Amino acid sequence: MLKNRQWRLVSFPSGRPETSNWELVETEAPQVAPGHLLVKALYLDVAPYMRGRISPQRNYAAGVGLGEVMVGGAIGRVLESRSAGFAPGDLVVTDFAFGWQEYALLSPRDVRRIDPDLAPLPYWLDLFGLNGLTAYFALFAAGAMKAGDTVLISAAAGSVGQISGQLAKIAGCRAIAVTSSPEKAAWCREIGYDAVVDYRAAADLHAAVAQACPQGVDVFLDNTAGRIHDAAMQNLAPGARVVVVGTASLADTFDAPDIGPRFLRQILVARATVRGFLCSDHAAGYEGGRGRLRRWYEAGRLQSKFDIARGIEGVPDAFLRLLTSRNLGKQLVKLDGD
Amino acid sequence: MLKNRQWRLVSFPSGRPETSNWELVETEAPQVAPGHLLVKALYLDVAPYMRGRISPQRNYAAGVGLGEVMVGGAIGRVLESRSAGFAPGDLVVTDFAFGWQEYALLSPRDVRRIDPDLAPLPYWLDLFGLNGLTAYFALFAAGAMKAGDTVLISAAAGSVGQISGQLAKIAGCRAIAVTSSPEKAAWCREIGYDAVVDYRAAADLHAAVAQACPQGVDVFLDNTAGRIHDAAMQNLAPGARVVVVGTASLADTFDAPDIGPRFLRQILVARATVRGFLCSDHAAGYEGGRGRLRRWYEAGRLQSKFDIARGIEGVPDAFLRLLTSRNLGKQLVKLDGD
Repeated sequence: MLKNRQWRLVSFPSGRPETSNWELVETEAPQVAPGHLLVKALYLDVAPYMRGRISPQRNYAAGVGLGEVMVGGAIGRVLESRSAGFAPGDLVVTDFAFGWQEYALLSPRDVRRIDPDLAPLPYWLDLFGLNGLTAYFALFAAGAMKAGDTVLISAAAGSVGQISGQLAKIAGCRAIAVTSSPEKAAWCREIGYDAVVDYRAAADLHAAVAQACPQGVDVFLDNTAGRIHDAAMQNLAPGARVVVVGTASLADTFDAPDIGPRFLRQILVARATVRGFLCSDHAAGYEGGRGRLRRWYEAGRLQSKFDIARGIEGVPDAFLRLLTSRNLGKQLVKLDGD
Repeated sequence: MLKNRQWRLVSFPSGRPETSNWELVETEAPQVAPGHLLVKALYLDVAPYMRGRISPQRNYAAGVGLGEVMVGGAIGRVLESRSAGFAPGDLVVTDFAFGWQEYALLSPRDVRRIDPDLAPLPYWLDLFGLNGLTAYFALFAAGAMKAGDTVLISAAAGSVGQISGQLAKIAGCRAIAVTSSPEKAAWCREIGYDAVVDYRAAADLHAAVAQACPQGVDVFLDNTAGRIHDAAMQNLAPGARVVVVGTASLADTFDAPDIGPRFLRQILVARATVRGFLCSDHAAGYEGGRGRLRRWYEAGRLQSKFDIARGIEGVPDAFLRLLTSRNLGKQLVKLDGD
């Protein structure tokens, strides 16, 4: 029998997650049910949204229960198929349905085919996956980004951030990065951001954002909440659109109230809009969005940097790297033996 | 010469405004300039937006400077006209251009004619003025209110609130009032609100709002900020629209940061929209809005209660009544001798 190692959630984190919140268990790979695929993981995903799935708090999607395999997407190869549309050896990607494990039984409904001639495998969990679509719909739909806007992006070198900055430039905007290290700042400049604020180095973050955005912020893609949010909210241009994509800075205090300045006056004075964003609300537009991302990629106008850890044993560590901003680029885990 | 008493701002309030922030000065009424009107006030307006005008903080409109006449609208009668379109005796209303004084020199551009046969004079500074238009555009435009929505309204018996509740009922919505006394609650029920939360009486405001809005809040017309805002934000339905119309509860702490829970997770989880609202952004639609308000008024579907103080001496007191929620209905000041 094929052995399958999988990470199961064994406790809810109180505050910052720790590797001990999961347990690596060896079990047997599932039998292929009719209409399904047995898929071997090549890359497992770790992503900020996962923090919300391991909290008992109300979220936009069901959480992972204790004892259950941790949720997550993956790139994989079909080992066995009992679905007419797939054959062993096919490369596929799934956004959420795989989980932190080596093998998974998947429904064809939950996978997309990968064309390895178009782009390297990691891109399929990134630019052509939810990160690309999130950046695309958050900016163009929720943020109503248009040429000439000043677009401020937090976690600017991260998975959604790096794509967002390039999309802002494609759209004729001024793209301003907020990031956490000189290395990330350099990457942001390399992919075209017009200015970079290093929030750990800035003595006065409000002033640093004001200096980088002298006309104010028209679109703020908020991946972090916290003090970067605070600095942005004090620099809104009239009619500003704030798109709340994630709250990464709250990862360590996820279940506690987020106390701080509330900015209702600033929202009123700027007649700003603050909008919560979930990519799947735009599912009807995915095909069109992916088509545009693909064309820009083929034209050499979009690229991603990846930070790739190795081995099933390292998945929780890679996730914690991400939560503490130690990754540079989209974080993935490549599994051994392939 | 005609004597003109006027209230001038002599100090910026620190915290809650006091009557001593203004000084009543007797001067001479202005001479009528060509193309202008000399108008005698019949009713002076006091309104929550005025708190923002007596703060050195950035606002959506210029503030009143020290030594200047306090800003404000009025209903008045033309005493002298040097404009072809107006004659002595004409009744007019202006939203902002009068100021807290007995006589003002006005440009015809800043006034609208009053038809006293359509509605009593106070309605022209209320339903047919900015309160009606604010309720109309905040709900139908910014809030995208539609039949079946649960619409929560704070300061529900106040000037904008009482109109908003009636508009929500006209639109086929469930209208929920948040107000501050049994008398106001009774008035809210009389004009059609489906449920009323008395925020001073509720032991647990979050639970009281949850009970009144079992399906969650689809549209929240936020006139107050503060703890009513907090309770609403914890009860958002998916896709909720929060329209920030005013921040009345911050009147006493206007220049200090508003510290409290920030609700970015709730905005994200509900994919809610929080939007700052300023009526004048909808000026292109005023004529259409007023036409609808007028037709609903003529059909007996909209009414306002007024709380009318008397005498130029009492204007600051009337404003403070408003800031401390002691008024019931739209607060105005009727001047003597007319």
